[in-house]
Amino acid sequence: MKIEVIENVLKYNKDQADKNRKLFKDSMLLVLNLLSSPGSGKTSLILETLKRLKGKKNIGVIEGDISSTYDAEKIGKLTDNVIQINTGGSCHLNASMIEKAISKLKIKRLDLLIIENVGNLICPSGFDLGEDHKIVMSSVSEGDDKPVKYPPVFIKSDLIILNKIDLLKISDFNQNFFENKVKELNPLSDIIKLSCKTGIGMEEWIEWVLNRCKIRN
Amino acid sequence: MKIEVIENVLKYNKDQADKNRKLFKDSMLLVLNLLSSPGSGKTSLILETLKRLKGKKNIGVIEGDISSTYDAEKIGKLTDNVIQINTGGSCHLNASMIEKAISKLKIKRLDLLIIENVGNLICPSGFDLGEDHKIVMSSVSEGDDKPVKYPPVFIKSDLIILNKIDLLKISDFNQNFFENKVKELNPLSDIIKLSCKTGIGMEEWIEWVLNRCKIRN
Repeated sequence: MKIEVIENVLKYNKDQADKNRKLFKDSMLLVLNLLSSPGSGKTSLILETLKRLKGKKNIGVIEGDISSTYDAEKIGKLTDNVIQINTGGSCHLNASMIEKAISKLKIKRLDLLIIENVGNLICPSGFDLGEDHKIVMSSVSEGDDKPVKYPPVFIKSDLIILNKIDLLKISDFNQNFFENKVKELNPLSDIIKLSCKTGIGMEEWIEWVLNRCKIRN
Repeated sequence: MKIEVIENVLKYNKDQADKNRKLFKDSMLLVLNLLSSPGSGKTSLILETLKRLKGKKNIGVIEGDISSTYDAEKIGKLTDNVIQINTGGSCHLNASMIEKAISKLKIKRLDLLIIENVGNLICPSGFDLGEDHKIVMSSVSEGDDKPVKYPPVFIKSDLIILNKIDLLKISDFNQNFFENKVKELNPLSDIIKLSCKTGIGMEEWIEWVLNRCKIRN
């Protein structure tokens, strides 16, 4: 009984994700689904991206949280194109929540939509939102063993971002161990190391995004 | 349909948790359920606790992870009383998993059982394991807004540990903001600030634990 219901939920989610995907494609919109533990720096990355691409790309942001509008308020200082989804306790975003959120964004005018998922390294990776790319962010302060302990999200992501590299100098984080484990799980993934705080590595991230923005006819 | 099944799961879990609780009580065992995001330092706290209470208290550890035996191997260097639960992808421990794990530990000989839950600030707080106390650990590097963004786990915990306070000097973490938000959600909770790395604050934690260990007749 339990398994049957979960399968129905995932099937329903997949159908809605396919509808979202078609809408995103028709709108020439690049959609990134940003996943991480709480406090890895997803919101900081979005804020820095908005600053660096201001005047170059129109960016929309969907903020997912179990409660509060704390992050959306920060983002709202830089753009009007932000929607907060409060999941009411649920540990992940799903495709239906995204459908409702994009109905409130003028997506035909946007080049890029960044979805900040609920801070959770496990559950969100199981739910397709219709995005072009899942991106997982890990941070130096979380330790180098995250790929070993939470494999699914690293397997399913096209890009692995290692944030807070300014802390490497005061940490025993082993970069080779981290990167080797990522590559074992997901040999085709890209890895970008950066610090939202100091700005180091941000150019590589911005270039990664710009290379994937759709060319409009 | 979906809600009904979830209610059944929670009812079944509660029944099993009550059985675990009775067993723990009959065994004069203090049981702590340790919750946090990935990488906050749960394993480091357990390692330091084992070192500091060696020869004073018999401690058992249950390690919860979605996969790997990485943490249990670290703990296993300090004690034989460690059991790894691999949830096979599930985002939290439940009371039945604990029942199976304790059948493999000689709990009548133990004074303290520490359960390291799966690294996840959301889902584990909804599942009673039969423990005496839920403890949530947050860390300076995750930012001061975690109580605002993830209220349930802070509401349900008796102790809030703020780890990595050695990073306060290079961080914009606002201790007053964090503590005020915790107290708004949970006025009766204790707050201990420490660093597993430098050892500062560890005495207060050890004292908190010793004060709660059961007095054997």
